[in-house]
Amino acid sequence: MKIGILGSGLMGGKLGRIWAEAGHDVTFSYARDRAKLDRLAGEVGASAGSVAEAIEEADAVLLAVHWSRRADVLEQAGDLAGMVVLNCSLPLNDSDSALVVGTTSSGAEELAKLRPHARWVSCFNTNPSESFYPVFARKGQAPAPQVMTYGDDAGAKEIAFGLIRDVGFEPLDCGGLHNARFIEPFAMATVELAYVQPGGPALTYRFDKLRG
Amino acid sequence: MKIGILGSGLMGGKLGRIWAEAGHDVTFSYARDRAKLDRLAGEVGASAGSVAEAIEEADAVLLAVHWSRRADVLEQAGDLAGMVVLNCSLPLNDSDSALVVGTTSSGAEELAKLRPHARWVSCFNTNPSESFYPVFARKGQAPAPQVMTYGDDAGAKEIAFGLIRDVGFEPLDCGGLHNARFIEPFAMATVELAYVQPGGPALTYRFDKLRG
Repeated sequence: MKIGILGSGLMGGKLGRIWAEAGHDVTFSYARDRAKLDRLAGEVGASAGSVAEAIEEADAVLLAVHWSRRADVLEQAGDLAGMVVLNCSLPLNDSDSALVVGTTSSGAEELAKLRPHARWVSCFNTNPSESFYPVFARKGQAPAPQVMTYGDDAGAKEIAFGLIRDVGFEPLDCGGLHNARFIEPFAMATVELAYVQPGGPALTYRFDKLRG
Repeated sequence: MKIGILGSGLMGGKLGRIWAEAGHDVTFSYARDRAKLDRLAGEVGASAGSVAEAIEEADAVLLAVHWSRRADVLEQAGDLAGMVVLNCSLPLNDSDSALVVGTTSSGAEELAKLRPHARWVSCFNTNPSESFYPVFARKGQAPAPQVMTYGDDAGAKEIAFGLIRDVGFEPLDCGGLHNARFIEPFAMATVELAYVQPGGPALTYRFDKLRG
């Protein structure tokens, strides 16, 4: 699968590396400097390029930029019509301390308004990037930790599910994109759990259903 | 421990029963009709009474009323000064379809403003009541499912932790009460997971931290 990474920081850098290691054709884009993209790409046999190159003929695109960069990266990305876009961006303020879109809407819904013909799937926004490699290293061990995943396009979700499994996670279907208004705030609670509470940042979670 | 249940519906009724079965001295209060309280109490050797009776000399109080009843139940409860209050109420609108307090505040914080001298702990608001008995039936089995628990009073949290363990859950410390603004919205996502997604409503979760 050809995967374009828009935003090659902590989240995008790590996921892109893991997907590359899992055998996908990954193109990194949108970092502060091109040298970082080239280094990332070189380390895992991936490509580095412009946003346009990353999304060209991509089977899936990961949007992993800071909220303040959304207009810029979307302008570079064009209309994204028909593209599968995995989104782990949260609508954070410049100091990353609060959400700037409230529970009457959500970052995911605002993005979908900006690009209504893209096939949005939200995922990985409640998973600290520090968990990715530890999960990948344990891939195949049951029970797998999960990734909350939500969106309105069933086919796009299936594609996201596959990419999530590639990392070693199990996708957790959290319904439609409107649930972003409930899950995005929760991502702030996972920040508390990962970085404030003891035990280190490699937080994982798993939801299960018991029988009576 | 003497425990007062304010609001004896799905949440309060079940938790009160389990705590009674675990050996605590439970008083149910605040149901639509007194007969329901008496029936609940009779089934598990607990007591039924007024809100004032439920909180009198209580070591812990569970607030489990609908948001629309908060003013009424708090008026009956008095100032709650120094009382340990476990709160699983969410600031829901009358149709339970949306939160009426946004991410710039939270139900837990608003309640703490109304009764600033009570020792608030939020918990159980991300756990469907349908999970309580299945968890209780598996009590002692590792790994235990968790209850997100947060508040600003360390001593009150310790008391809540004990009551959570009594049900068979492991308390998950989610930091201070301000995190309510992130966790309360998430409770709406657990509604999706429990009642919309397949597998039944007895949803449980567990957060773990991996090592690199």
